[in-house]
Amino acid sequence: MQDKPKIAVTMGDPAGVGPEICLDLLADRSIEDATPIVFGDRVVLEHCAEVTGKPLTAPTISSEEIATTTEPAILDLRKIDLESFTPGTVNKSTGAATYAYIDAAIGAALNGEVAAVTTAPANKEALRSAGVTQPGQTEIFAERTNSPRFCMLQYSDIITCSFVTVHTGYAEVPELLNTERIVEVIQLTRNALRGLRRREPELVVCGLNPHAGENGLFGNREEEDIIIPAIEETRSDGAKITGPLPPDTAFLESRRAETDAFICMYHDQGHIPLKALAFDRAVNCTLGLPFPRTSVDHGTALDIAWQGKANPRSMKEAVKLAATLAGQA
Amino acid sequence: MQDKPKIAVTMGDPAGVGPEICLDLLADRSIEDATPIVFGDRVVLEHCAEVTGKPLTAPTISSEEIATTTEPAILDLRKIDLESFTPGTVNKSTGAATYAYIDAAIGAALNGEVAAVTTAPANKEALRSAGVTQPGQTEIFAERTNSPRFCMLQYSDIITCSFVTVHTGYAEVPELLNTERIVEVIQLTRNALRGLRRREPELVVCGLNPHAGENGLFGNREEEDIIIPAIEETRSDGAKITGPLPPDTAFLESRRAETDAFICMYHDQGHIPLKALAFDRAVNCTLGLPFPRTSVDHGTALDIAWQGKANPRSMKEAVKLAATLAGQA
Repeated sequence: MQDKPKIAVTMGDPAGVGPEICLDLLADRSIEDATPIVFGDRVVLEHCAEVTGKPLTAPTISSEEIATTTEPAILDLRKIDLESFTPGTVNKSTGAATYAYIDAAIGAALNGEVAAVTTAPANKEALRSAGVTQPGQTEIFAERTNSPRFCMLQYSDIITCSFVTVHTGYAEVPELLNTERIVEVIQLTRNALRGLRRREPELVVCGLNPHAGENGLFGNREEEDIIIPAIEETRSDGAKITGPLPPDTAFLESRRAETDAFICMYHDQGHIPLKALAFDRAVNCTLGLPFPRTSVDHGTALDIAWQGKANPRSMKEAVKLAATLAGQA
Repeated sequence: MQDKPKIAVTMGDPAGVGPEICLDLLADRSIEDATPIVFGDRVVLEHCAEVTGKPLTAPTISSEEIATTTEPAILDLRKIDLESFTPGTVNKSTGAATYAYIDAAIGAALNGEVAAVTTAPANKEALRSAGVTQPGQTEIFAERTNSPRFCMLQYSDIITCSFVTVHTGYAEVPELLNTERIVEVIQLTRNALRGLRRREPELVVCGLNPHAGENGLFGNREEEDIIIPAIEETRSDGAKITGPLPPDTAFLESRRAETDAFICMYHDQGHIPLKALAFDRAVNCTLGLPFPRTSVDHGTALDIAWQGKANPRSMKEAVKLAATLAGQA
């Protein structure tokens, strides 16, 4: 019998909901296809278990023991004192610890000690106050693994979207669109879905303008000049692509049923239907890294942190998807 | 007992799905709160009934008889020969007829002969080939009724959205946003929903940028400089407004349940969730005219026209909503 893939799960910002959803994950014996190893601080998890009343029975292991462990476990990185932060607040110390968990997980994945990484939420402000220069976790992964060609994919059983642009202002999107980048995102999406579906995936590429420009009636012909050439290039390589579709009719129920992934031009084009249809169910993946990386689709939620209210579903789905992606690699 | 409101229903482009959904409407005795009067050509309806096998028993009435009719009827405007067009195609003759039906319906509404107007789909290309200068039906209504302050509202029982900008390219939206226009759309939306709900409605105003700009992290501070001043101005007038909300979380199920209408900055911001969640159920209203005007939320669908496949639900909902709005006026 093959070993279940080991997934490095970063604990996320200690002051956020990361520790409690890691406790839920470690306690959940229904996750049969992966062995999660939480990269974090045992003292934080223990204190969080006391405060929230959640159980904690997973053992602590050393980095040498990762290779032989077959049960959910904790790699105790000892990066933070309980006295240095208050749950629910932004702290320099928790930002530094968040970064250290990520850094250790990336190292373990690059060394082949784990098959994939799943990340709990980081707090951008805390990272910045700790001197981290990258704007978010994804950029940390891209830089540390020397991966310049990457993109975000949000995966759920209802709707899956990948993104040509993500965290940029509305007005900056048109100047960021170019055929090369769209080809890149189509290729990354196609490869990931081909692994997951074990067949050629059905892709939809969205237009930028209302009605996809209606043959140049709206917009600056971004569909004709930028998007269609990218579709033609990837089609000639064998990709099955419909588009560019009017963004509003792209996500109709009938279309969703026959589409494996939607390639979206901007953040809200895909995040509006994702959150409206699959809130708490989507898993965020970074495509283009040397190993699979997934993350929860929510933030640190400081307002409800350490209260036992956080929903662990996205975390569990993220670990399962990381294991599936690792199995296909 | 009060008379049921009479609704002028334009037949739409004769070559499209308008005639067949008008036949369905005339035959539906379950529409109890309105008396629809189809403004169109009897010869087209009769021929369409033969081709599709749909019944046609509604009488023809003269414009003088509108005042006294109490049953669904046809005002036979005799604007087109059957020989002048082929169903499913774009024609100059059907464009001219489409315009004539609209023009007659607007005249009847301005004269008080009907309480409201519901429009079947027009074909923009056919209108243009017939020499109509306005880009769409809404602009015809605005010009003919001398109504410079108007906006689109898409209404359904699941989600309702109004629009600050509509049929404009993606890149042009930021320069079209200004506080005065947003105030106008909030006020028009508030008035319409107050009539429908008979209470102060709960409104959500969406941001423009991802995460509503995240305090200036993304975008050009459109939220702070343009949208928030509009919210504050209308709030001081008593409006109940939440926002500007991140566009992706604005449409979560929990938020939708407590929101009467969403004010959207651009076409796809509202049309993506509308079509994903309420396809075939939303009714398009034009707010700001001297009388209620509603329309179906689909086009002429030339590819399936005269085949009896068109879904009349949006037409029936549009007539019902027109009657409700007329009753509140």
